[in-house]
Amino acid sequence: MSKKIAGPEIERMVQLLARLPGLGPRSARKAALALIKRRTELLMPLADALGEAVRKIVVCPDCGNVDTLSPCSLCQDPRRDRSMIVVVEEVGDLWALERAGVVNASYHVLGGHLSPLDGIGPDRLNIARLIERAAAPDVKEVLLALNATVEGQSTAHYVAEQLAACGVAVSRLAQGVPIGGELDYLDEGTLAAAFKSRRRL
Amino acid sequence: MSKKIAGPEIERMVQLLARLPGLGPRSARKAALALIKRRTELLMPLADALGEAVRKIVVCPDCGNVDTLSPCSLCQDPRRDRSMIVVVEEVGDLWALERAGVVNASYHVLGGHLSPLDGIGPDRLNIARLIERAAAPDVKEVLLALNATVEGQSTAHYVAEQLAACGVAVSRLAQGVPIGGELDYLDEGTLAAAFKSRRRL
Repeated sequence: MSKKIAGPEIERMVQLLARLPGLGPRSARKAALALIKRRTELLMPLADALGEAVRKIVVCPDCGNVDTLSPCSLCQDPRRDRSMIVVVEEVGDLWALERAGVVNASYHVLGGHLSPLDGIGPDRLNIARLIERAAAPDVKEVLLALNATVEGQSTAHYVAEQLAACGVAVSRLAQGVPIGGELDYLDEGTLAAAFKSRRRL
Repeated sequence: MSKKIAGPEIERMVQLLARLPGLGPRSARKAALALIKRRTELLMPLADALGEAVRKIVVCPDCGNVDTLSPCSLCQDPRRDRSMIVVVEEVGDLWALERAGVVNASYHVLGGHLSPLDGIGPDRLNIARLIERAAAPDVKEVLLALNATVEGQSTAHYVAEQLAACGVAVSRLAQGVPIGGELDYLDEGTLAAAFKSRRRL
């Protein structure tokens, strides 16, 4: 819509939708049209939901998770094992681990990974609070569940160094062949890690 | 998020975003997280924009376009040529023609195409109002700019029949090789249409 063919409200909606990950200008236009066309079933509920999100969603001051409670519902849950802190880069990683249902510990969301080229140093991540939390006497283990990327692993290395003084056990996720993975399609790094960490049957 | 790990507001936002075209459950989660993370630059403006859209966007009673004015800004524009009505399936098609800048006529949005299997008959489309408009004495030509799909073309056929009584000239877009198209990659239908409608140089 380079020319003015509709009110600025529609154009603004398209431009904002285009800034969501996964949507480009073309799919943002399609999304805007779907919203306009399905006013009562989609546009009104989504407008309400985003308004609610603006009013209610907060970042947990303890772990960096997002929720409508503060501290977040995971930090408030008495059934969670507080002796382990699982450190993740983003809230999406926390959601992925919760969907898999493998963790019953507390979490800590760093808010990203170290990236000196983008000006993201340790002070830009939620690391200081992690050191504080890890120093508590009931914490026995910190699991660094960061992405198996270069950035994730160098962040893990840095965080592990910072945690050394706490005297807490520091661990990381196992690396190897993913379940259902075919060797022929795996990269050399994964195969090397899987070989190195082979287990006796 | 099968388990309750965050407030229902976040889950609801993810579910609604997943209903946008182009977003699935996974990308909806990513979009929700991007919104939460970029609260002031993205979440708040988008919540506002959708709220504005709910309050202001209306369907034009004349042509079926969506706008914040009623009749829409295209119908109100005195520089538009009212002797031609360009009929499109959806508002997105109108936007595409306007982006291309090829039309300076008035539009008529049908709101879809005939699809008997989905229960979409002529009464579900904005056809009756088109017949009314086409009968006006200043209208000389109706261009059926419908998609070159089976559904689009059968809808065009039906609309052309309905328009026969108005005594107005009815036309359709040319079909052929798209600009930049390579013959080797085109389907047989397109090649047949291009051959049949070949032009003398």
